[in-house]
Amino acid sequence: MVPTVEWKDGAVRLLDQSRLPTHVEFVECRDYRAVAQAIRELKVRGAPAIGVTAAMGVALGAQAVADTDYDTFANEVRKICDHLAASRPTAVNLFWALARMKDTLAALKNKTIAEIKAELVRESQAILEEDIALCKAMGRQGATLIHSGQTVLTHCNAGALATAGYGTALGVIRAAWEQGKQIRVIADETRPVLQGARLTAWELMQDKIPVTLITDNMAGALMRQGKIQLCVVGADRIAANGDVANKIGTYSVAVLARAHNIPFYVAAPYSTIDLNTASGADIPIEQRNPLEVTAIHGSHPVAPEGVEVFNPAFDVTPADLITGIITERGVFKPADLARAFRA
Amino acid sequence: MVPTVEWKDGAVRLLDQSRLPTHVEFVECRDYRAVAQAIRELKVRGAPAIGVTAAMGVALGAQAVADTDYDTFANEVRKICDHLAASRPTAVNLFWALARMKDTLAALKNKTIAEIKAELVRESQAILEEDIALCKAMGRQGATLIHSGQTVLTHCNAGALATAGYGTALGVIRAAWEQGKQIRVIADETRPVLQGARLTAWELMQDKIPVTLITDNMAGALMRQGKIQLCVVGADRIAANGDVANKIGTYSVAVLARAHNIPFYVAAPYSTIDLNTASGADIPIEQRNPLEVTAIHGSHPVAPEGVEVFNPAFDVTPADLITGIITERGVFKPADLARAFRA
Repeated sequence: MVPTVEWKDGAVRLLDQSRLPTHVEFVECRDYRAVAQAIRELKVRGAPAIGVTAAMGVALGAQAVADTDYDTFANEVRKICDHLAASRPTAVNLFWALARMKDTLAALKNKTIAEIKAELVRESQAILEEDIALCKAMGRQGATLIHSGQTVLTHCNAGALATAGYGTALGVIRAAWEQGKQIRVIADETRPVLQGARLTAWELMQDKIPVTLITDNMAGALMRQGKIQLCVVGADRIAANGDVANKIGTYSVAVLARAHNIPFYVAAPYSTIDLNTASGADIPIEQRNPLEVTAIHGSHPVAPEGVEVFNPAFDVTPADLITGIITERGVFKPADLARAFRA
Repeated sequence: MVPTVEWKDGAVRLLDQSRLPTHVEFVECRDYRAVAQAIRELKVRGAPAIGVTAAMGVALGAQAVADTDYDTFANEVRKICDHLAASRPTAVNLFWALARMKDTLAALKNKTIAEIKAELVRESQAILEEDIALCKAMGRQGATLIHSGQTVLTHCNAGALATAGYGTALGVIRAAWEQGKQIRVIADETRPVLQGARLTAWELMQDKIPVTLITDNMAGALMRQGKIQLCVVGADRIAANGDVANKIGTYSVAVLARAHNIPFYVAAPYSTIDLNTASGADIPIEQRNPLEVTAIHGSHPVAPEGVEVFNPAFDVTPADLITGIITERGVFKPADLARAFRA
């Protein structure tokens, strides 16, 4: 797999996911504003990948701050964090990564500015490496839930492309596949931005994991026909009560899975769990540009000009529809998550 | 509204629905093969509209048959019916209309060939006029189910464009609106062919009925938020037990509606009720070209080349998920339909 995001030659280099799968192109961000813009425009997306990228954005921004005293420097870096925090509202990994970078900054008060700059780059790299390790641990924990011969439905892209590598939901699928289990994946195309069609199908085909693409509205019919044995999706934010915000359409999949007695799992690392948010009702849901719905790739209209549109990027799946949450520490009932992770 | 289909200057003139809403263009079919091709390519679609168009296709084809004896002539016309019957498998209105044209043909054995040719044109026109009358009757029957202030979800396009005029599901909505009820419509875009985005939104905007477009995967989240009070859809075939085949995704909407205690109605005329098909399991479901899923308008790729795809054009909603079936004769429980229409 090509890396989703990397620090290269003093810049943040992103695989431009808005162009996949027809174009495999990279974006080189040479300042933190370009990083925020890339997050806003979905050139990089997926909660863990957004977190890693934002951390690198802070490190990148810090390099350009003048070498003055610590307080002035730290103040500028915190402004960079604020700018990056405004890029997208729902995925908590963004705020988690920025908080971690600010904590790092605070702990370096007695270092020189040059040392702090180097340390911020190292910390962002540590977040990236940790993210891959978390995905692999989730994969090990979740793979036991998937049995040979099963077909797994996934929604959106919670894969290597949504993380620093390996993936959350697709990490679980990948781990089961690597264990030699004969499994198949059904990928919801995931309108409006088509992350399932453009990214999940592409990623699985690269790894030769059997995948069948469907439109989002086919999932129910396939469940009724007995063609799906398990669902696994990622998460953008998990509230303390186990409610999960994830890509729009996840809730419908969960309701359909329940109606057909199909287990519905969420895979996410600790950085996606937000114990400061009591329930899903408290999670801010981003409303995006109507053009995502009315035109494909922003340029091929599929609806009448001027039509009113709803375009929430996420929905909330209540804890009671979730069979289990797969984390790097194990698989938890949603209700048990807060106790396990508060400790 | 522009007419969906009409007999004009000795040809069948169709509004090319595959080009809407960006292009309002007409296709003139000068032989029955062009009519079958237009049905196959979704230039005209919607079960009642397919029925009307096929009847006109028979009339058109008959005009070009040589003036020989009745048996030779009738044999040629029946071959034309067979050709049209092979255009699409699911919508029973197609077979109903062809059977009616064959019955007309059989009843005209003692007429001259010239008289039969004229009579077949008249019969196809009668089917068209009856279809509009059926839609208006369904509208009257169904409008009572919708109350002022309500928001109605519909899937695909069961509107004027799916019929000779006025519509089935949208006919019910249209009738409620004409009665002065303040209602709003939420239109599922209906991937892969986007009949909701391209046709339903366009049609309602033309009539100034408030409509909001969503992607198919948003319906569940909106139901959970209390934003939808009623669902009404059309049908391509209703089996004797009340199971309904309709556009892919209808089943998911019905499951979601049940989970949120939202009434789910189907609107269809008698010509869509197929008492010879025992249950939904016996309805043939058309599988269409994967390109509908992998590329928008057949030309803008949204998925990796060569990806495996499922593309069933329809699904079956079991009778027990359907609150009522709105027909020209009244609103029936699915289980009561066969008794009412066998009589």
